[in-house]
Amino acid sequence: MEKPKIAITIGDPAGVGPEIIVKLLSRNDLFLKCEPVVYGDGEILQKACALIGVPGKITAKGIDMGGERVAVVNPLGGENGFGGKMSAELRGPRLMMEAVKRAVRDTMNGKVGGIVTCPIHKESMRLAGYDYPGHTEFIQELTGAEKVVMMLAGERLKVALVTIHVSLQEALGMIREERIGETIRIVQNDFIEKLGVKEPRIAVSGLNPHAGEGGLFGSEEADHIRPAVEKARAEGMNVSGPYPPDTIFHRAYNGEFDVVIAMYHDQGLIPLKLVHFDTGVNVTLGLPIVRTSVDHGTAYDIAWKGIARETSLRQAAEFALMMMAGGKRGHR
Amino acid sequence: MEKPKIAITIGDPAGVGPEIIVKLLSRNDLFLKCEPVVYGDGEILQKACALIGVPGKITAKGIDMGGERVAVVNPLGGENGFGGKMSAELRGPRLMMEAVKRAVRDTMNGKVGGIVTCPIHKESMRLAGYDYPGHTEFIQELTGAEKVVMMLAGERLKVALVTIHVSLQEALGMIREERIGETIRIVQNDFIEKLGVKEPRIAVSGLNPHAGEGGLFGSEEADHIRPAVEKARAEGMNVSGPYPPDTIFHRAYNGEFDVVIAMYHDQGLIPLKLVHFDTGVNVTLGLPIVRTSVDHGTAYDIAWKGIARETSLRQAAEFALMMMAGGKRGHR
Repeated sequence: MEKPKIAITIGDPAGVGPEIIVKLLSRNDLFLKCEPVVYGDGEILQKACALIGVPGKITAKGIDMGGERVAVVNPLGGENGFGGKMSAELRGPRLMMEAVKRAVRDTMNGKVGGIVTCPIHKESMRLAGYDYPGHTEFIQELTGAEKVVMMLAGERLKVALVTIHVSLQEALGMIREERIGETIRIVQNDFIEKLGVKEPRIAVSGLNPHAGEGGLFGSEEADHIRPAVEKARAEGMNVSGPYPPDTIFHRAYNGEFDVVIAMYHDQGLIPLKLVHFDTGVNVTLGLPIVRTSVDHGTAYDIAWKGIARETSLRQAAEFALMMMAGGKRGHR
Repeated sequence: MEKPKIAITIGDPAGVGPEIIVKLLSRNDLFLKCEPVVYGDGEILQKACALIGVPGKITAKGIDMGGERVAVVNPLGGENGFGGKMSAELRGPRLMMEAVKRAVRDTMNGKVGGIVTCPIHKESMRLAGYDYPGHTEFIQELTGAEKVVMMLAGERLKVALVTIHVSLQEALGMIREERIGETIRIVQNDFIEKLGVKEPRIAVSGLNPHAGEGGLFGSEEADHIRPAVEKARAEGMNVSGPYPPDTIFHRAYNGEFDVVIAMYHDQGLIPLKLVHFDTGVNVTLGLPIVRTSVDHGTAYDIAWKGIARETSLRQAAEFALMMMAGGKRGHR
């Protein structure tokens, strides 16, 4: 049986992307399950190999890491594209973005089965002339997806977010029935289609302390969250809530639910990072393709010192492979 | 050496208070460390003993639980006060409130060293004619404390809250420099005075995702939180922040800080309950006395079935004893 191909994008070359990719590929266990294709630049990967102290020889189609040959697709050049034409300053940011663009195209065309992305940097993105709020919105546009949902996934806890990178004040104004309902439907669909969970047990968190305590501490639960939950239930989904935020993550962690839908960034990320600090995977739901991402940023402060850990990238690759296979029973 | 006396208030008799008190007292390890005094009603405790299946014989000064004699102070009657005069409906709620009042008075007078409270119910409180937002505000008024801070404490994580039982929208309007500064000062003072931590390492959480990401996701960090932190630092306190909310609790859990100051209820309680679900203690800082409380409500739905767990009450008693002794080294 042919092994599935998985795209790994290099991310910002000035960040930790290159070294965590090399660290991941230098252990051959990943090659037993799939054939990784790095979207990036062979010379940069070669430098990262030297940094880590592993073999890295550029070949016609990629890089030979001492036994394992890794295909490298350079979106800025020809077949292997190691010749740079633009200014050095712009080369990194453009490589970072074009790698994503090419990887998405190859996934849409079926050349590879899914994408794992390394972190990009927003200022680099703008410097290179790409005007998007972030990585995910760029991929969303490339795939033509109408709406996407960010999910953070660990072995025991998974959280999907109704709102993300806005102030808490702004998030409050976005917590509306329609948005919550869309989030529930995307989560439901992707858990069935991509994660292989037949009847996902979806918990919806409240917004206010004690989920509003019957209207005493806010009315969003009654006005927006409960109606969205009830509508989804009426459509036959196994969704419930709104639950008091301070206990629902504990319940999900203990296996009562497959996923918690959180109303705002920190409501979901505080518990996720507390119990899955090094092992969380960022999964984009709602796309026509499989895409996971590391759960950290470019980490310029520690980049190119050889100390960045590849744990999250490994988890992201494993999770993408699981999704590419249509999910697996028993995985929560 | 005489053992310290600790007051345990019965809480709402219709809730789980009586049975968790009896469960706690039926194991004699607590008596090795202190002399518990229950503020409540002997007959109710006797019924709880029968429910749990332990001895419970009313004596002149309290209740004999088979070897251990527990003093019972009934605030509604005479020495032992088992004769009820008011209507049955009002008796429970009034007992619940007057037990707290009497226990606070006895603690202020030095008859007992501190108080552990069992849960009351807000509707019962109002039914009995006491018009307070909650348990803590009642105790605050009885002691004349100007401002108090709610802290939830577990072995590895402690969180103190700037705002508590208000909607998230209302909390946003309360996150102001002065309130944050007062919270920091009370935490600093009580960690030194009551918890025995010489130079408390206090982390202050941000409010918005990524602590505002330099103003991109909200300005409360720059406008209110940072100024409060800087002022406290200028006064010599070991306080830092504002930190991104999604990682600071993980850092504190791993020992980097003694306590995290959280901006709103769920920001602190989500992580606390995730890692210390059954063992969290509610501590009121800023009072002239030691007061801890169980970390759960009256739980009417499971009360008087004998299945409520006394874990949180035990932790609350242990924590109060530690504070009564002026804290202990090494306790975080």
